[in-house]
Formats: sequence, C-alpha cells, structure tokens
Amino acid sequence: MVKKVLKFGGTSVGSIERIQHVAKIIKKEHDAGNQIIVVVSAMAGKTNELIDLSKNISKNFSKREYDVLISSGEQVSCALLAGALINLNLKAKSWMNWQIPILTEGEHSNARIINVNVEKINKFLQEGIAIIPGFQGITKNCDITTIGRGGSDATAVAFAKLFDAEKCEIYTDVDGVFSSDPKKIPVAKKIEKISYEEMLELSSVGAKVMQPSAVQTAMMYDIPLEVKSTFTDRKGTKIFDQENIDYSKSVTGVAYSKDDAKITLTQVEDKPGVAANIFAPLNDAQINVDMVIQNISSDQKTTDITFTIKREDLSKTKEILRKNRSINYKEITHNAKVSKVSIVGAGMVSTPGVTYKMFKALADEKINILAISTSEIKISVIIDEENTLNAVRKLHTIFDLD
Amino acid sequence: MVKKVLKFGGTSVGSIERIQHVAKIIKKEHDAGNQIIVVVSAMAGKTNELIDLSKNISKNFSKREYDVLISSGEQVSCALLAGALINLNLKAKSWMNWQIPILTEGEHSNARIINVNVEKINKFLQEGIAIIPGFQGITKNCDITTIGRGGSDATAVAFAKLFDAEKCEIYTDVDGVFSSDPKKIPVAKKIEKISYEEMLELSSVGAKVMQPSAVQTAMMYDIPLEVKSTFTDRKGTKIFDQENIDYSKSVTGVAYSKDDAKITLTQVEDKPGVAANIFAPLNDAQINVDMVIQNISSDQKTTDITFTIKREDLSKTKEILRKNRSINYKEITHNAKVSKVSIVGAGMVSTPGVTYKMFKALADEKINILAISTSEIKISVIIDEENTLNAVRKLHTIFDLD
Repeated sequence: MVKKVLKFGGTSVGSIERIQHVAKIIKKEHDAGNQIIVVVSAMAGKTNELIDLSKNISKNFSKREYDVLISSGEQVSCALLAGALINLNLKAKSWMNWQIPILTEGEHSNARIINVNVEKINKFLQEGIAIIPGFQGITKNCDITTIGRGGSDATAVAFAKLFDAEKCEIYTDVDGVFSSDPKKIPVAKKIEKISYEEMLELSSVGAKVMQPSAVQTAMMYDIPLEVKSTFTDRKGTKIFDQENIDYSKSVTGVAYSKDDAKITLTQVEDKPGVAANIFAPLNDAQINVDMVIQNISSDQKTTDITFTIKREDLSKTKEILRKNRSINYKEITHNAKVSKVSIVGAGMVSTPGVTYKMFKALADEKINILAISTSEIKISVIIDEENTLNAVRKLHTIFDLD
Repeated sequence: MVKKVLKFGGTSVGSIERIQHVAKIIKKEHDAGNQIIVVVSAMAGKTNELIDLSKNISKNFSKREYDVLISSGEQVSCALLAGALINLNLKAKSWMNWQIPILTEGEHSNARIINVNVEKINKFLQEGIAIIPGFQGITKNCDITTIGRGGSDATAVAFAKLFDAEKCEIYTDVDGVFSSDPKKIPVAKKIEKISYEEMLELSSVGAKVMQPSAVQTAMMYDIPLEVKSTFTDRKGTKIFDQENIDYSKSVTGVAYSKDDAKITLTQVEDKPGVAANIFAPLNDAQINVDMVIQNISSDQKTTDITFTIKREDLSKTKEILRKNRSINYKEITHNAKVSKVSIVGAGMVSTPGVTYKMFKALADEKINILAISTSEIKISVIIDEENTLNAVRKLHTIFDLD
C-alpha cells in the first residue's frame, strides 16, 4: 500500500464536470490500493472574485479578514469534491484547516505551514479519502492564515513530508514541464525527468507549472514530485533529486521572461557597501530586482552596475535611485524593453563549451547580448525584447530540444 | 451601556455598497455607546448558488459535506463586513463557528444551537464589534452543521439569550411586520407593536419577515425583538410579550397563503386512531398537512375529514390515500385551487363578535367559506383561490386596518 498526496489546481476543479472527472481519477488511485490525501485549490476564478470583493471595500483591507475571506474558496471545492467521491460510493471526508489543524506561522497572506496533526487523518486514511484545502492554515491563536498565491502546491508538499507519503502528484492543466513555452515554441517537448534545481530555474523564469517555494521544500526533504495533466492520460514530468537523473543532454530547457527593463548606473564609486546602498531602498519599496551584473572596475575606482526589474517598476525605480543620496555615480541609463533568455540544464556542468555554443548561436542570429549571468545549471542573457522568440527558437534547436 | 445583537439578512449584505451601508448602521450603534454583536447571513443568492452546485453533483449529496459547503457563504460576508468596519476605523473581528465555538446538536442541515462560549467574545466586546456567521455551528465532534434556511434569525436570538443582550434587532429588506402583504394590499400598514404569538401566526401564514422557530425561542426566553429595514431610517416593528401590549384593535393583521389545495375524505369510518392512520403515511412522505377539520359525524358512524396541503403535493397525497388500506371511506374529493385567509389578533379574545363579523363580511362579498378553523388569536377560512385578494381587502377594511 502506497500513501500518495494528489494535488488538484483551480482549473482542475473549475466546474462541476471537472470535479466529477477529478473524483474518477481519485477513485482509480484509491481502487489501486493506495492511501490517498487530496489537496485542492479553490475553483478557478473564485479566489480572484473574493479578492475583488475585498478591494471594492478597501485597497487597505484588513489582513486578518482577507485571509478569512479568501480561505473560503477551498472550503467550497473540498466539500464539493468530497461529495462527488461519496457519490461514487467511496468513503471520503473534507477536513478544514482548523479540524486537522494545519498550524502555520508568519504574517497573514504569507504564512508557512509548520506542523499538521497527522494522527486523526492517518487513522481515517485506513478507511477513506481525506480532502484537504490547499493554501491555508491557522495560527496557534486560531486565526485563519493563507500561505500566498499558488500555496496549494506548498500544502501538498508539506503534507507529503509530514505524512511520509511515497508520492506527491501535482495535477494541473498542462501535460508537465516543457523544454520551452509550448504556446510560443511549438517544437517544445515535454520533459520526462527533471531535477529540483532545473525545475526551480525553469519555474522562476516563466514556466510556472509549480510554485517555486513548494519545489524548494520538496528538494529539501527529497520528496519525489510528478506534474501531470488532469485532462489527459499522458505521463507527466517527474521531478527528482539530480543524482537520480541520467543526463543525455546538456540543456534541459530554454526559458524566457517578458516585460523586463534594464537599468545601468555608470561609474559608480567602487567601495564596500555600495551595492547594499543601491538595493536596500528598492527592496523597501518592494521592487523585485532580478539579474544584477557588476564588472570589475577598469579604473579601480568606479564600476558600472546593471540590473533588471519588471518594466512596470521602471519609473518608480529611477525615481528612488535619483533620490538616493548615499550613492555616487555618473548617470542612470535604461532600456525599457528587454527580456531574459535562459538555458537550463543540470547536464551543463559536465559538458564543455555550452556557454560558447549559446553565445555563438545568438551572434549568428545577429542578436546583441546586453548582459550575461551564469549559475551552475543556468546561463541567462539579457537581449532586446523584440529578439526574444527568435533567440529561444534558435537555442531550442541547437541544444537538440526540438 | 446596552448590549445589542444586530442581525442582517442576505439582501442587507447583498453587495459591497450594502455591506458598507450596514457598516455605517453598526458604527452609529457602536458610537452611541452600545456593545455590539452582529449576526450576518450569506450575501443574497450565494447560498442558493452553493446549493445548486451540490445538486449538480448529486440529488443525494452528502449531508455532512453539504453543511461544509453552504456554511462558507457566511464566512465571506462576515469577513467583508469586519473589513468594512475596520475601514471605518472601528475595532472589529469576524468569529467563525469553530473559533467561538457555536455548539449544536441534531442532524445536519437541521441542527439546533445548544451552547456558545461567551467568554472570549464578551471580553472582546469591551473593545470591539464581534461579527458572527448566522445559520451554523459545529457538533461536539467538530463537524460543521447548519440550522436550516433562515437560521440566521435563530442564531441572533440564541446569541441574544446566551449573551444576556438587552435588544435583538433583525434588519431586513422590509420596514417591519405589516397588517397584510403591502405588495398586494396597498392600504396595509406597518404594525408598531405585536406579540410573539401574533407574529408567529402571521409568519406561518405568509408574512415571512422572521423565521418562526426564532420567534418561538424569543418568546420562550422573553427576548424583545425589533424587525426593521436596513434601507430606511423608519421605526420597525417591536415584538414583545403579549402582556406588554395595549390592544386598541381586535385584529392586528390579515394574512393569506397561496398555492393550497383541499382534500376531503367522505364518510370515513369514525373510530379511534383513524386520523393517525390517515396522516401517518403523509408525514412519512414529508407532505406538510396544514389545516385539518373534522366534524362530529351525523350518523355517529362516519365522519367527513377535510385538510389542506400545498398544491404541488396534491397528486402524491391522493395516491398515498388511495393506497392506504388501513382506512375506510366513501370517496376522495378535492379542490386544487384554494387559499387560506386568516385574521390574527391577540385583542380578539376580549372582543366579542369578531368571528361573526368576519363571516358576515365574506358573505356580503358572496365568498363561499369552504372550511373554518379557529384558535385563541386567529380565525382562518379556506376559500376559492380566485377570491383571495378580495377577501383580504374586505377584512383589512372592516377590522380598521387600512
């Protein structure tokens, strides 16, 4: 008997027909002799509806009451799914955050699951299927909390860990993780196996199949994940520890981000603490800085610092920089329309020449590289936005991903 | 300092604008120095939406999960109202059924509130406004229960009792209790004061301003109620113990029910137990029998038994009667289109001639009375449905209610 956590996202339970379809998937898993914990999101669109209600009352809606409000969406989908399973003559039961309880800590709307009482549910699993609301919990003072958008993935991984589940399957509306965005790059292929690290690099640059923090937790506790489609019978993508994967290819996928902007501060006075002085006020203003590139200064006294941000934050960022009296520089330049293109692959480290191959391919296409950043399993370049898809297609081809 | 329970129904919190309006009403009450417990229903239409979802899964949806499902509606309205109050710089907090807790017993969807932990809320009332979901609670095993449609009234009355509140105000979408249906009888007037008993008689025959069982509970514990409009500043209707009301008029209101049907069994064998034999199978089939009239039999051996039911139950009722082998009678006759018109008034008992006056008025209008039933504070007649409004208007006039 295998203990499994199955997580179904909002689109998977987005209508009565879909909930009934999900119930059949669960029945199949249960009839195969598995012990099943199901984590569900709110029905697609419902959480946004509730958020809109709160915004119509106040832009500054009480954080405590916001969590009370939006956690109700999963209560609905849990009850409907439990009812649908009971209707298939299965024993099933919804468990609310407080009935378990799912204990969290941290601030409202951004809490973390720290513990779950496993005893009652483990007992129940011997006879039935437990349906759990994703994305929420309670504090030790019994206030309702939520754990951030997409937090149902985090709930699934936390349950897999705390219940010692053998498998954690993330059912969603795509077939798995792809070598690039299949909507824009039709030759993109589904990846059968991927490491946590690669998955993280791919998800943080656009392939948002799973919540990055949930992948991180799975990596930390070595919980094998599988991302698969609710709507097809196809095999999904298995996400493992890197050591368990045999890399035949140096690059696993090509990702890209849109709507980026690039800012450069020229001739910044090169002394300790200058980077902190630049980025601290941006952090305070909740501006998300992505790539940061700083070269060794040519004159030993000044350096150019380049970084990327979301395009919508551009004018705010420039304003903050201009008002910042703690830094000295010559000028602020920017490029409002750039994108980041990344090749990701754990096989990269053992394959020489990947970097050169990438830069050569872009040069062949006459695409100018505006900045470069590399890590163990990823190489990212900043280019003009208009060249994005051209670059992605070229890289997808030359790294044998088509 | 006065402790008040204010209850707001579904239409009162049916939109963001209305919730903000309700918040202003509560602020006024709070600023006047009162301690306020607010009981809210789900936003208008939401409970029906949730019920429809469950019906689309199964006509026989799990009762436990049904309660989990529909209790979520009040979670939403509680959070929104608490948020709206906080936005007015008031201290307010939503309290979910399990956070209080509201302890219930009895079956799902039809539970009764048996206790509420008053300690935490009483402490909180010294600084803020408590927002409570109507219509729900939990069992001692921590399952979610609901207490039947319209159960928010029952929650309000139970809280008024358990918190020793001086007042319980039921805010709704009408100005109060009227002497008859103001939509059909334009001369109908709002009643300023009414006894629990009269209210019960009026509500059970159509003036559904408040849930009858909630009025009964208020009567039992002598909790003064006031029904008033959320949308006007007008005074509402106060509902007291009969002794506190000075009756200048013999009749307080004229009520009527629609969509009734009348069935008569002729020459029923007149022996002990025959009524039980007739009505037990109808009760089993959940057919609600309203008026029952049985005359003394003329031949000492048989009697005619007449009763009314909802029209939609007519064919089912006749079928059950025909299959019933435990009763002997000559024939079943029916009238599918009748209505019940009732005059209600606690002043009736001390005013002679009310019955005669009623019958005379109907005779003057050439309205045939098909059956009569009387109680201490009510006289009901069954008439052909087509005469309903004519009869109600006439009675409203001759008993000085216009």
